[in-house]
Amino acid sequence: MAGSDMRWMALALHLGRRGLGLTWPNPSVGCVLVKDDRVVGRGTTAPGGRPHAERVALKQAGAAANGATAYVSLEPCAHHGKTSPCAQALIDANVARVVYPIADPDDRVSGKGQDMLTAAGIDVTAGIMAQEAEIAHQGFLTRVRTGRPFLTLKLASSFDGRIATASGESQWITGPHARREVHAMRARHDAVLVGGGTARLDLPSLTVRGVGRWNTPVRVVVSAGLSLPKTGPLAENTAAAPLWLIHGPSASQEDRTFWGTKGADLIEVEEKPDGINLNHALSKLAERGLTRVFCEGGGTLAAGLLAEGCVDELVGFEAGLVLGADGYPSVAVTGVTDLGAAPRFELYDTRQVGPDLLSRWRRVK
Amino acid sequence: MAGSDMRWMALALHLGRRGLGLTWPNPSVGCVLVKDDRVVGRGTTAPGGRPHAERVALKQAGAAANGATAYVSLEPCAHHGKTSPCAQALIDANVARVVYPIADPDDRVSGKGQDMLTAAGIDVTAGIMAQEAEIAHQGFLTRVRTGRPFLTLKLASSFDGRIATASGESQWITGPHARREVHAMRARHDAVLVGGGTARLDLPSLTVRGVGRWNTPVRVVVSAGLSLPKTGPLAENTAAAPLWLIHGPSASQEDRTFWGTKGADLIEVEEKPDGINLNHALSKLAERGLTRVFCEGGGTLAAGLLAEGCVDELVGFEAGLVLGADGYPSVAVTGVTDLGAAPRFELYDTRQVGPDLLSRWRRVK
Repeated sequence: MAGSDMRWMALALHLGRRGLGLTWPNPSVGCVLVKDDRVVGRGTTAPGGRPHAERVALKQAGAAANGATAYVSLEPCAHHGKTSPCAQALIDANVARVVYPIADPDDRVSGKGQDMLTAAGIDVTAGIMAQEAEIAHQGFLTRVRTGRPFLTLKLASSFDGRIATASGESQWITGPHARREVHAMRARHDAVLVGGGTARLDLPSLTVRGVGRWNTPVRVVVSAGLSLPKTGPLAENTAAAPLWLIHGPSASQEDRTFWGTKGADLIEVEEKPDGINLNHALSKLAERGLTRVFCEGGGTLAAGLLAEGCVDELVGFEAGLVLGADGYPSVAVTGVTDLGAAPRFELYDTRQVGPDLLSRWRRVK
Repeated sequence: MAGSDMRWMALALHLGRRGLGLTWPNPSVGCVLVKDDRVVGRGTTAPGGRPHAERVALKQAGAAANGATAYVSLEPCAHHGKTSPCAQALIDANVARVVYPIADPDDRVSGKGQDMLTAAGIDVTAGIMAQEAEIAHQGFLTRVRTGRPFLTLKLASSFDGRIATASGESQWITGPHARREVHAMRARHDAVLVGGGTARLDLPSLTVRGVGRWNTPVRVVVSAGLSLPKTGPLAENTAAAPLWLIHGPSASQEDRTFWGTKGADLIEVEEKPDGINLNHALSKLAERGLTRVFCEGGGTLAAGLLAEGCVDELVGFEAGLVLGADGYPSVAVTGVTDLGAAPRFELYDTRQVGPDLLSRWRRVK
């Protein structure tokens, strides 16, 4: 039983991961309905966050849900939001058993889904593949638990950690395979984040291209003074994806008006002597519902986020060339003076991507 | 036949690699004598370079060499040096056939071994696993072809390419598994090379420890002014391994005398405005017979070697921590201003070593 529970839960988690980047502010959940060791329904939380995975699976199963086991990658919800709770829908469909890995951290739900199901006489098993579920839902869990989104910092650099030559040339250090992989990573996030320096230097469009996905992560740019290029992809293609600009109180009215007219959302946050209060900025993003943010630098923003302890995951793309100390550093001054104080990460994946080296690291708690 | 030729040649190459770091100025060759699909003798060039692999294998085979096929990882030598040529020894033993991958680039040998064997009526096949042999013998081949040793540059850094904090703390950024691997790498080289800054900052002993090898690579330190710490492992443990000090004409007589008395070999080379002429230094090392040099930094020496195009291979050990631009860069200023001019390398191996990430890159010719 435990073996097949894990097998079906792995499928539910897999289905849930399909919706990453699409369901914020909701978690992306997967659900599999199994009867007599056969799948009778499957679902992923729909883009935009509704309907939930359980309802998608129940609809597919129809009458076959009667007596089935529901594998759900997160505790079914128990509160009346825009719709009635999923726990109730599972009861109404007369499922025999519900299996899930971890409780929903949302106070309105946590444990209540389980209570509702148990009270209705449904057999409930919790804790199956809990560690995997913690990772699958890390965006949603981080937002609910800490009030900021889960943040992945990607740095594409030379072998010696440089993101541009002394003359500012940065396109392209890594190859087309790495760039494709970056677009696929963007698509699995709710938002792409860069600093003002990168926006000025690289004139990026920050959209998802060439990977066959339909979603458009929010584009977030941090610039204390709102000093961003008024020509180029960000200003000229605001329809491509939402554009949120995080700035400080010092931003001029003229710039605010310019970007407001362009359709950008202006988010004013506190400033510190050395720039934007990044913790405040991230809490604003979480308030707006973002769960997974993909930061692509540059060096100053990367250093600020690392120094504030806001980076949950590192993604490195390293190219086989050396630029030397005359190049731009991937991470600017952090103020770290002894090794014990440096932010630490644990390697969990490495492979070759085209000619480049990909490595992924998780923060050591 | 071709399949079994490759199988036995792979064994010969494997035997040859066992002697890396031990046989300079000679190549480390492997030899397998095969008769009726059975190994009757095997050999590796002995430490110090003599006897050659063929003689070791022939001695083991004794009379069984009669009619055997000899797989040798490099063309057998044909010149009278300290001993009579190996080609003659193979003829005397009455082997039926000799297979080797590539000609010896040494003018005294190249093609002559083949001629001598053919003239004696022995069947000769050349070119089997030539690419693998080019890599196995890259130290010897580079020395003979270019007049400098094959140079591997190892950099152990943080995720963002820093080798020490702003305060100079560098022990330990990478973990004990990486350090063990570094000692194993040192053992497969003829010499370990560092710059004066590293000698002053880290006070390294540059010996091979904890990997069960008996050889002691030469320790080479580059310091234009011979300004090296007069206490610490290098000065106090000169018996541990040969110590060669590369300096410029400006080194004081006092320092020369100090190190000479300590038993160090002093190697004077040309100076340029920005330090030692590294090409001259490497040619001096090749003249003394070194074929494989393992450079462990620091940043200034690394930058100089890269800028001069003297680095054949990069080895990176990357730890999961971030130090930021206040830390010491792994590679100092190189003068590279556009991407097209940057030295390029091709990834050929990557794996996790303890908590750290190992990557190995070969120069793109």
